[in-house]
Amino acid sequence: MDEFERIKALFAPLAGEAGLGLKDDAAVLAPPAGRELVLTVDQMLEGVHFLPGDDPALIARKLLRRNLSDLAAMGAMPLAYLLTTALPSLLPEEWLIGFAAGLEADQRQYGITLLGGDSSSSRKDIALTATFIGHVASGQALRRNGAKAGDGIWVTGTVGDAALGLEARRGRLADDTGFLTRRSLLPDPRVGFSLSGIANAAIDVSDGLVQDLGHICRASGLAALVQASLVPISPEAAAHGPNTLELRLTGGDDYELLLAVPPEKSDALRAACAGVNVTRIGVFQPGDGVQVLGDDGAALNLSAHGWKHF
Amino acid sequence: MDEFERIKALFAPLAGEAGLGLKDDAAVLAPPAGRELVLTVDQMLEGVHFLPGDDPALIARKLLRRNLSDLAAMGAMPLAYLLTTALPSLLPEEWLIGFAAGLEADQRQYGITLLGGDSSSSRKDIALTATFIGHVASGQALRRNGAKAGDGIWVTGTVGDAALGLEARRGRLADDTGFLTRRSLLPDPRVGFSLSGIANAAIDVSDGLVQDLGHICRASGLAALVQASLVPISPEAAAHGPNTLELRLTGGDDYELLLAVPPEKSDALRAACAGVNVTRIGVFQPGDGVQVLGDDGAALNLSAHGWKHF
Repeated sequence: MDEFERIKALFAPLAGEAGLGLKDDAAVLAPPAGRELVLTVDQMLEGVHFLPGDDPALIARKLLRRNLSDLAAMGAMPLAYLLTTALPSLLPEEWLIGFAAGLEADQRQYGITLLGGDSSSSRKDIALTATFIGHVASGQALRRNGAKAGDGIWVTGTVGDAALGLEARRGRLADDTGFLTRRSLLPDPRVGFSLSGIANAAIDVSDGLVQDLGHICRASGLAALVQASLVPISPEAAAHGPNTLELRLTGGDDYELLLAVPPEKSDALRAACAGVNVTRIGVFQPGDGVQVLGDDGAALNLSAHGWKHF
Repeated sequence: MDEFERIKALFAPLAGEAGLGLKDDAAVLAPPAGRELVLTVDQMLEGVHFLPGDDPALIARKLLRRNLSDLAAMGAMPLAYLLTTALPSLLPEEWLIGFAAGLEADQRQYGITLLGGDSSSSRKDIALTATFIGHVASGQALRRNGAKAGDGIWVTGTVGDAALGLEARRGRLADDTGFLTRRSLLPDPRVGFSLSGIANAAIDVSDGLVQDLGHICRASGLAALVQASLVPISPEAAAHGPNTLELRLTGGDDYELLLAVPPEKSDALRAACAGVNVTRIGVFQPGDGVQVLGDDGAALNLSAHGWKHF
């Protein structure tokens, strides 16, 4: 078997019915009745989104989960995905086996299948791209542009763990329990919540809370006012003290959902997110831009504005 | 504007309605009534699928056209695509402008729009991935596994020009008119033919005639018998003499359609491919493997078996 046949043999068991056993030029997919399709694509590059020695199974799972998080931000349920791999020819076979095992684990966890893909040799770096297909009730996709003045700003889970975890992986921060590192390597996308009719707008926190909130503000023509003290923080992050605040507010890779929710829908939101904490951290107002207020009521001056990869 | 904002500004005019102005986490797509979706993905890597100095507009168009050819091989009509770009940070802005112009030209030519995408910095090489979405009447997708013993083997256009064009680009072959080089840089995917009810199986010639014919044979459980003298050749390729036969039969990048067609459907096939020559080059038989017979009736011994990129 040459390398392409090896890849095919490893990936064929991952293919669902629509993938035609990965034996055709393309996959065929009939979307569920009454549903629109939601499509998104994300790539992970060696040296940019992951480090050369990282566990290939975790790289695979993060690749899928970043895309799953984009679907969650649209209020969509995941269905299937396509994959391209560009791999240097000297990559050990164990890497590929670990990568396929990671795909398999998360396919089972999220009920998705591989539809098709393309494998190629690369000259040097590993480059991976996944295109995800989800579905949503027709006309019910969550957008960034639907926030209204007076809507609460809500966020799921805790914010800033992944940015601190990246610092821990770089040896700049202690992480005795491994929690922060794990949050950086293996995000927990908030798929499966029924948010239509509850949230007016949504985005996932991939570039950093302040930057992603800015995306909703620009799309909706509004300002956002956030209380720093309300932003949910894990005990492991809190243990590193208040000096990490700026990194937590502007660091990326959290993959939590950031939502615009009218005040009268707060209880419905909590019910829809059963099992996951969801916290009101501020309010949308007329105007533009994102302001984060510190404990003294003064606006913080945040120098970093979003994650620019490694 | 930073580089991501520049890319966004260049690509936003390419987005169709379903792409939501490239301002959301994902695109929303409602497929046409009574149609199934057909999805395929292909990547192009610097140093593998194109050379560093190649015209960025031609790279963009070839990226789209390789995917369009996969849709054509499934009998599907193109609808839209998603794009990821991994670009080194020192890439001149002219490259990006040329790349976007190439996308725009072929979007107009093929009636497709950009749905969404992802841009990232790369450490060194350019890596590009396009995911294409097409549609086909439900249950009518052309597969590789439908060929029947007795079906004619048909091919559109001419075979081998792109492999000779690559040799010309490497300075190993004369190409006074530029025809062969152009066939290598800018394929002409055979989209838009209505082949359902006519062809029993189809594939596009991307890895080389012999290799791709082998894919149909394996999927359909058949052998293929080809007469080398029947394989259609352009005048420009013919001018290089019979010594190029093996390269023409095994070289990739032609993006012609290779079809299994019952004898009684030959006229219908010619009518469906109006404007493009379509040639019967052999027959599918019980057995396995691909045999190509030379003028003396003996099987050729083809040492190369398909294109392995640069």
